[in-house]
Amino acid sequence: MGVPAASTFEPRGASYGRAVISGRELEDARRFAAVRLAEAGVVLTDDERVAIEVADFGLSRLEESGLQLLVYVNTDRYCAKELVLQPGQTCPEHRHPPFDGTPGKEETFRCRTGLVYLYVEGEPTAEPACRPPQGAYTVGREIELRPGMQHTIPPGTLHWFQAGPEGAVVSEFSTASRDELDEFTDERVARTTVVG
Amino acid sequence: MGVPAASTFEPRGASYGRAVISGRELEDARRFAAVRLAEAGVVLTDDERVAIEVADFGLSRLEESGLQLLVYVNTDRYCAKELVLQPGQTCPEHRHPPFDGTPGKEETFRCRTGLVYLYVEGEPTAEPACRPPQGAYTVGREIELRPGMQHTIPPGTLHWFQAGPEGAVVSEFSTASRDELDEFTDERVARTTVVG
Repeated sequence: MGVPAASTFEPRGASYGRAVISGRELEDARRFAAVRLAEAGVVLTDDERVAIEVADFGLSRLEESGLQLLVYVNTDRYCAKELVLQPGQTCPEHRHPPFDGTPGKEETFRCRTGLVYLYVEGEPTAEPACRPPQGAYTVGREIELRPGMQHTIPPGTLHWFQAGPEGAVVSEFSTASRDELDEFTDERVARTTVVG
Repeated sequence: MGVPAASTFEPRGASYGRAVISGRELEDARRFAAVRLAEAGVVLTDDERVAIEVADFGLSRLEESGLQLLVYVNTDRYCAKELVLQPGQTCPEHRHPPFDGTPGKEETFRCRTGLVYLYVEGEPTAEPACRPPQGAYTVGREIELRPGMQHTIPPGTLHWFQAGPEGAVVSEFSTASRDELDEFTDERVARTTVVG
């Protein structure tokens, strides 16, 4: 039993059996995202390529629950990002609460490449394409997004999403993004962004 | 002297010597934009392809002053578009005034392909790359945007832009877009969008 390789990351979600993601996993995820963005025709500067964020949501099971993202701009009025998902990777169920007198973040997901299944509030889909990973998932109205398709999520409403078997690149257009305010259904989840 | 082919378009800018753009010009511009977006890796739905807007700014000199655009989303809080410029095409100088108790539109331009020169308020660039077309142009601080580069324009400030010799595809992320409120320096200019 050795010390985890990347002990600078706060260990969370120990019940999932592994405390941290390694520096190797982080670099692999960042490289994966850069390649997929390039394949989608997205040109990045050198500074942006090393600024790709990797979020493991404190669960330390990155391939299962996680997200790679690049923030283009995030003012106090609007935000634009590219999200990159590994094959079958899930962003856990959450919502964006009101803040600073606003109704909370409103966001539009537009699929660029691959395939992503979005799950939102409403009548659950009878035979959904995805099964959520271990955790707390309560909404099940499925919206399939293929390249060129998009969907807007009202503020304060629950949602989660999972990539298809090839992964996905998804543009996110929204009001100001304040990730640290996100409310996750699974209280073990934290919007941890592993950046180094 | 015949009747203009597309007489359903309101004639404007007659001092420029031609009253309207033809249906052929409109279709050519739309097709150009669709091809350039595809080359940039942007996948459009069939509905979007026919919804590409062509703005001639009422000047009826589309190749010189004009813009092709596709609006992904425009809620009352944020907006995202793709702008497509023909080689050397200029979007005339304008600003976005306050409305509905907001400071006015704030926008980020991100170059996807090609090259675009943005001109904003500030110390004029000594040897600018572009010459504006006939009209009223008063700001001259040049910002060169190549693929992967972006710039954010504060609300209420004057700006114009011109594509390089190959044209450009530019993503625009912003607060809510209300084109009809735009204030152009050249009073002959109108934010006319020719869509049919």
